[in-house]
Amino acid sequence: MKNFKIRIEVSARHCHLSEADFKKIFGRDAELTPLKNLSQPGEFASEELIGLKTKKGEIKRIRIIGPLRKYTQIELSKTDAISLGLNPPIRMSGDLGESSGVTLLGPDGSVNKKEVVIVANRHIHANLKQAKKYGLRNGQVVRVDIKGERSLVFDNVKVKLNENYDLSMHIDTDEANACGLGRAGGFGKVIFK
Amino acid sequence: MKNFKIRIEVSARHCHLSEADFKKIFGRDAELTPLKNLSQPGEFASEELIGLKTKKGEIKRIRIIGPLRKYTQIELSKTDAISLGLNPPIRMSGDLGESSGVTLLGPDGSVNKKEVVIVANRHIHANLKQAKKYGLRNGQVVRVDIKGERSLVFDNVKVKLNENYDLSMHIDTDEANACGLGRAGGFGKVIFK
Repeated sequence: MKNFKIRIEVSARHCHLSEADFKKIFGRDAELTPLKNLSQPGEFASEELIGLKTKKGEIKRIRIIGPLRKYTQIELSKTDAISLGLNPPIRMSGDLGESSGVTLLGPDGSVNKKEVVIVANRHIHANLKQAKKYGLRNGQVVRVDIKGERSLVFDNVKVKLNENYDLSMHIDTDEANACGLGRAGGFGKVIFK
Repeated sequence: MKNFKIRIEVSARHCHLSEADFKKIFGRDAELTPLKNLSQPGEFASEELIGLKTKKGEIKRIRIIGPLRKYTQIELSKTDAISLGLNPPIRMSGDLGESSGVTLLGPDGSVNKKEVVIVANRHIHANLKQAKKYGLRNGQVVRVDIKGERSLVFDNVKVKLNENYDLSMHIDTDEANACGLGRAGGFGKVIFK
């Protein structure tokens, strides 16, 4: 397997909401309004924003990523989590057992949620054709080298395959800052162990 | 030269003030009150805090690191800088040319400063005896491997030698979050190129 260049995208804090939670805080007749398509086919940033509140703090303007999902999940950077007094686990999307709780605030109400907040594990999306081309396996762990003023090599980068994905590495804003990438992202090199 | 284990310390946002700037915002008769000694001999966290203000935002509670210096320097994480609408360069301490400006707020006044804000370049402090023992040269660039849930290898880690220093690597809060270290820091391994 040969090392290869990969696009890096920076995920700012965001949330995925269940339909029930969305209706509770936006109203029974509300719907998500797509603002911008994301790189993963079918996913979009919505115009709708929510707030998060804990005993220690509040964060406003968390963007909802659509479409609505079966479960609610909030993805924060560690910096965000600390500002809310939370210590969420570093997890892959969907793995919410023993994650942190928070209150969701919307224009039409609020809802207290347990086990919804994680810090996302850095990961690579790829579809099956791309996986074959580059020799990636689902669940595989690779390293990604980022060059620049704050050069570093990310270890523990997990590969997620799905026929609907498109090749891209996702890191959060703390990781982007640590490796010198702006919100627009950049490129890195996948290194096989 | 053999790789070796090193203590990692996490620098939260902080500032160094000149005596003139300190008096302007704390009053003519004010003095720094040491709160806690830091690992680098002679340096201390003071009880005194300042605020920072820009057109875009404000950060409260920036700790002053004493003693007072010949020049004022503010060290922020990139996350902090973005919240203030600033884009400071990544620099070694003291290298302030074309750095960012900000207004310093104290209990007794405020002062507008140009070229005072940087994001600190990650670095290693060592004294001359330690440098000899481990084969470190002043200005040398090494890599540091951090193990854990968010394992990574920091590149571009600059070595700073001074007879008063004590062996330690300093990273900022974004870097700590990206490599899974808490505010209490941890340990890494210096890797020679």
